[in-house]
Amino acid sequence: MESWPPGGSGPAGAGPRLRGLRGADLAASASLLSGAGAEAGCSAPAVAAVLPAGGSGERMGVPTPKQFCPILERPLISYTLQALERVSWIKDIVVAVTGENMEAMKCIIQRYQHKGISLVESGVTRHRSIFNGLKALAEDQPNCRLSKPEVVIIHDAVRPFVEEDVLLKVVTAAKEHGCSDYDLDFGTECLHLALKYCHIKAKLIEGSPDLWKVTYKRDLYAAESIIKERISQQICVVMDTKEDEEHVGHHLEEMLKNELNHVKVISGRDLQQIILEQCYNFVCVNVMTSDFEETQKLLNMLEESNLSILYPVVVISVQFLDYESVPFGQKMENLMQIREFAKEVKKANILLYGLLVYYPQDEQKLQESLRQGATIIAALIKERNSGLIGQLLVA
Amino acid sequence: MESWPPGGSGPAGAGPRLRGLRGADLAASASLLSGAGAEAGCSAPAVAAVLPAGGSGERMGVPTPKQFCPILERPLISYTLQALERVSWIKDIVVAVTGENMEAMKCIIQRYQHKGISLVESGVTRHRSIFNGLKALAEDQPNCRLSKPEVVIIHDAVRPFVEEDVLLKVVTAAKEHGCSDYDLDFGTECLHLALKYCHIKAKLIEGSPDLWKVTYKRDLYAAESIIKERISQQICVVMDTKEDEEHVGHHLEEMLKNELNHVKVISGRDLQQIILEQCYNFVCVNVMTSDFEETQKLLNMLEESNLSILYPVVVISVQFLDYESVPFGQKMENLMQIREFAKEVKKANILLYGLLVYYPQDEQKLQESLRQGATIIAALIKERNSGLIGQLLVA
Repeated sequence: MESWPPGGSGPAGAGPRLRGLRGADLAASASLLSGAGAEAGCSAPAVAAVLPAGGSGERMGVPTPKQFCPILERPLISYTLQALERVSWIKDIVVAVTGENMEAMKCIIQRYQHKGISLVESGVTRHRSIFNGLKALAEDQPNCRLSKPEVVIIHDAVRPFVEEDVLLKVVTAAKEHGCSDYDLDFGTECLHLALKYCHIKAKLIEGSPDLWKVTYKRDLYAAESIIKERISQQICVVMDTKEDEEHVGHHLEEMLKNELNHVKVISGRDLQQIILEQCYNFVCVNVMTSDFEETQKLLNMLEESNLSILYPVVVISVQFLDYESVPFGQKMENLMQIREFAKEVKKANILLYGLLVYYPQDEQKLQESLRQGATIIAALIKERNSGLIGQLLVA
Repeated sequence: MESWPPGGSGPAGAGPRLRGLRGADLAASASLLSGAGAEAGCSAPAVAAVLPAGGSGERMGVPTPKQFCPILERPLISYTLQALERVSWIKDIVVAVTGENMEAMKCIIQRYQHKGISLVESGVTRHRSIFNGLKALAEDQPNCRLSKPEVVIIHDAVRPFVEEDVLLKVVTAAKEHGCSDYDLDFGTECLHLALKYCHIKAKLIEGSPDLWKVTYKRDLYAAESIIKERISQQICVVMDTKEDEEHVGHHLEEMLKNELNHVKVISGRDLQQIILEQCYNFVCVNVMTSDFEETQKLLNMLEESNLSILYPVVVISVQFLDYESVPFGQKMENLMQIREFAKEVKKANILLYGLLVYYPQDEQKLQESLRQGATIIAALIKERNSGLIGQLLVA
């Protein structure tokens, strides 16, 4: 049996409790659910989550409800689901959406391969939507795949950056604490509602700044930048040679480390492992071969891996130009086939760019080329601009 | 004499008043300043602004205080100063900064050519900083260039998107109204302070969502995206031919209008006027000439205009490739000089990119090239990525 809470042990629970997280999460084990899993203790409580997602997003100033607004082409609510799915002890997630958006929501679940999600129709208010979600969890119907939870987390669909530790605090508090006057004075509207109508105790848990709610258009911008930053923290450099210790590829790797000083730059020795660890940025350095053979191998591997389902993966194919052997124009012409590859892999959410690095004999000039190459690579990874795929940049 | 308020006439003022704008602006004509310009009426009141900017930005999670954090390479506080400077009826702006940041602040004022700014040393708290700013405005010293104002707006240095209409409401309210219990209950800490210690009336004015405060790192991201969006609302297409009605340049213009459907695309007939109207995006289409002659003329004009002091100006030089007359490789080689131009004009905050558009005889293929060209132009303008300057993109 799992020990609960993970990393510690709390006192036994004491019957129905409801806890509010300031402006964000609410964990309920209200009367509606009181029959389910009432035995508490050190065992893991059965936890489910309800996401009210029936809002119309009036304040956003855009026609799409904010929970469906795209960030890097994926709807906001999918990021929130992803954040909850990562938490192994949340067993079921119920999303309340309007009848109008039911089909769109099903498509989102299918396309981004979300697991353990049930849909219910939202109500005319946020609280009615929550009620519908709780009802679905409480119902003990035949053929119903949902199990009755002991604690239910109520989480806004438009708070995509919720972390496991905050959710854990909320659930632990839902099992453990009483309430104070301070908490009651500074609660959220949900908290007040629960107190007024449910006659149950409540506690406010302070959230982190990351838990903020996407409300205005500026919040979408901020969310996009945060997501871009998060998936750019690690770059894998793949080389077509084993002799990289004394090699230009190795120098490029060093330059990248300087250019991106908060970013982990790793060598692609075990690509399958790196893909598993969810690295979303690949620099494929072609020193020995001068075409896209290595890049294609990498692209095939990425396409098979499903890595790019949730985030666009950036691949930069680096080639070198030695003016003495091939003229610049001819080299460029040879490499233009990258445009076709890029168009093809874009369908799998892979953003492919080319980079041609001038390779002079002069060591200082070579360093300068490599430095510029690193700047371009950093810019491409940071922006993840799908309008520039298939372009051949020159350093 | 100017009529006041602009666009309407308010009743006569009634002595010292202090008004708070929810979480943002406070217009004070407190006892400290009561001797100055006490005659009210329909004449424009003498208005000054005090910006407390002594904060250390702890919540930002970065070592630079948030008011000095760069957005498109320019410190946040410069955007706030710019927003206040645009308001013709604000006569003086006093910024309170720490002694440590005094020199940096002077450099910012000089570099971004801010006018009418005075500096005072900040105090240990926000309120002491405001006090120092008010004192500077109240002092009647010889050689002091500041004139005693009737109304002083207190504005956070980290709220860069304040609009004239909100400031006008605050100043008008400072001259006109009494206060209500509701306002007092929901006031800001500044408002409460004023009430407690100054024995003056106060009123709360509701601000717009744009008035939000840059507090966390995500707010810097949001501010950057908002600024990028604002300066990308207008694109000027400059052509080297008068016969554009039947021409490829005209088609490209149409494609741009489709690609950027919220953006105004204008033809560059009177460039001086367009520069005066603060258009920050130029697409220079070279049909008749195949080098950078036209682009250079435009760059010279932009460099002389000072347009790029406040925002990076994007220039995209569009060339066409007719495979039948010049091979691709040779054309690319000819155009590589753009890298040197780009490096040069970057010093003047101009971001120069090249775009080579394939020009086939087949009308449908040409349309496809132009469509891709428009996508690339849109991507470059939207991102304003200085890491990619001097690159020659291919459509």
